[in-house]
Amino acid sequence: MTLKAHRLISGARVVAYPAPDTGPSLAREIAAGSIAAGAEEIPMIVPMRTDRFPAQEVYADAAERIAARLAAGEDVVCLCEGDPFFYGSFMYLFARLVDRFRIEVVPGVSSLGACAAALRRPLTARNDVLTVIPAPLPDAALRARIEGAQAVAIMKLGRHLGRVRRLLDELGLTVQAGYVERASLGAEAVRPLSEAPDPAPYFSMILLYKGDDPWLS
Amino acid sequence: MTLKAHRLISGARVVAYPAPDTGPSLAREIAAGSIAAGAEEIPMIVPMRTDRFPAQEVYADAAERIAARLAAGEDVVCLCEGDPFFYGSFMYLFARLVDRFRIEVVPGVSSLGACAAALRRPLTARNDVLTVIPAPLPDAALRARIEGAQAVAIMKLGRHLGRVRRLLDELGLTVQAGYVERASLGAEAVRPLSEAPDPAPYFSMILLYKGDDPWLS
Repeated sequence: MTLKAHRLISGARVVAYPAPDTGPSLAREIAAGSIAAGAEEIPMIVPMRTDRFPAQEVYADAAERIAARLAAGEDVVCLCEGDPFFYGSFMYLFARLVDRFRIEVVPGVSSLGACAAALRRPLTARNDVLTVIPAPLPDAALRARIEGAQAVAIMKLGRHLGRVRRLLDELGLTVQAGYVERASLGAEAVRPLSEAPDPAPYFSMILLYKGDDPWLS
Repeated sequence: MTLKAHRLISGARVVAYPAPDTGPSLAREIAAGSIAAGAEEIPMIVPMRTDRFPAQEVYADAAERIAARLAAGEDVVCLCEGDPFFYGSFMYLFARLVDRFRIEVVPGVSSLGACAAALRRPLTARNDVLTVIPAPLPDAALRARIEGAQAVAIMKLGRHLGRVRRLLDELGLTVQAGYVERASLGAEAVRPLSEAPDPAPYFSMILLYKGDDPWLS
C-alpha cells in the first residue's frame, strides 16, 4: 500500500470495498491496519464468478450507496486490490459517479510488479514490448498473442491453468515460464509451471520472457 | 511510495540511487523525506541518453560499490522510480549482485497506473489484452503492434513523439489517445495528443483504448 493510500484510508470516515459473497474481503484485510476505529463501512458484495463479471447491478447499487454518503457531504474512500485501473472493478464505480462527484484515483502497486518481484525476474526491459494476456481468451487468440509477443504476463489463470500450460508446452515455452500465486500476500508461492495447481488460485500469474537475457545485454 | 519502501528507506544507513550527469536525482528527490539524516549515499551517475542505455560500465561500477558496503555487513537500499522490474535499470544491478548477496525486490507503483489515474481512464478491462510499446521501435513494428492491440500504452516518447503522433493520425486513432507527462510528479500535465510537445519529456505516455467503452459493458 502507498503512503498516500494509507493517509487517505486512515482519515476516512466512510470506507467502501469489494467483498465476496462468502468469506472476508481481501481488500479490507489488506487495509485493516489503516482503517480508523468507528469508520462506517460499505461492503460491495461481488459474486466471485470470474466469467460473469462485471456484475453491473452490484456496481450500480454500490454506486448509489456511495453517492448517498457523498451527497450528504461525506468523503468516501474505495479500497481496491492492486491498481484501480488495471483490470480493476473500481472503473465501474468511477464511470457511475464521475459526472456527479469529484473523484481522485490513487494508483497502486499492480500484480504485474508484485509477481515480477516474487519471481525475481524482470517484466520487460529495454525496448521490448510487454503483452498482458487474460487466460480466459480462446485458444487461438491465446496462442497468437503469445507467439507474437516478447515479454508476456498471463493473468486470470484460475480454471484456465491447464489449458494455458498445454499451450505453452506445445509452443516449447514452458521452460521460460515462471508461475506465481498470491504474490505479496501471506500465502505467496513460486512454483515451476509443471507443478502449478489446476485450477490455479484466482490470484496467480505466468510471466514469460522470450527475448535474450534482459539483464546483461 | 509504498509503506514498505518508506520503512526500508528510513531504516537504511546506505542508500543508492540513479542520478543524471547533470542536475538532481529524481529518485532521491522523491524519497528525500524518507532518507535518514546522516545516511551514506551512493549516487549512480547514468548518462541520460535513452538510446545508449544500458550503460553497462555504470552499473558494473555501481554494483561493485554496493557490493563493498554489503560485504562490510551493511544493508543497502537502492531507490528506483516506478517499479524496479518494469523497464527499470535496477535489473542490471540485480543481475550483478543476486548470486553473491541476498536481495529483496520491493514492487512499486509503475508509470502505467500513474498515467491511467492522471488521464482518468482505465488501462485495460475485462479480458482485453494490454500491450505496452516503447516508442523507439521502428515505424513498421510500432504500426503492427498498435494495429494488433486492444488497450495500448506507448512509453519512452521523448523525441519519438512526432513520429508516434503521425502514425496514430494515419491509423485514425488520435481521438482515442490520451497523453500525459510527468504523471504523479509536481509538473504532471494531461493534454490532447495534438498539443503534446515535440520532443516530449522523458516521462510521458500515450494511452489508447481501441475496444468498446470499458466502463459500462
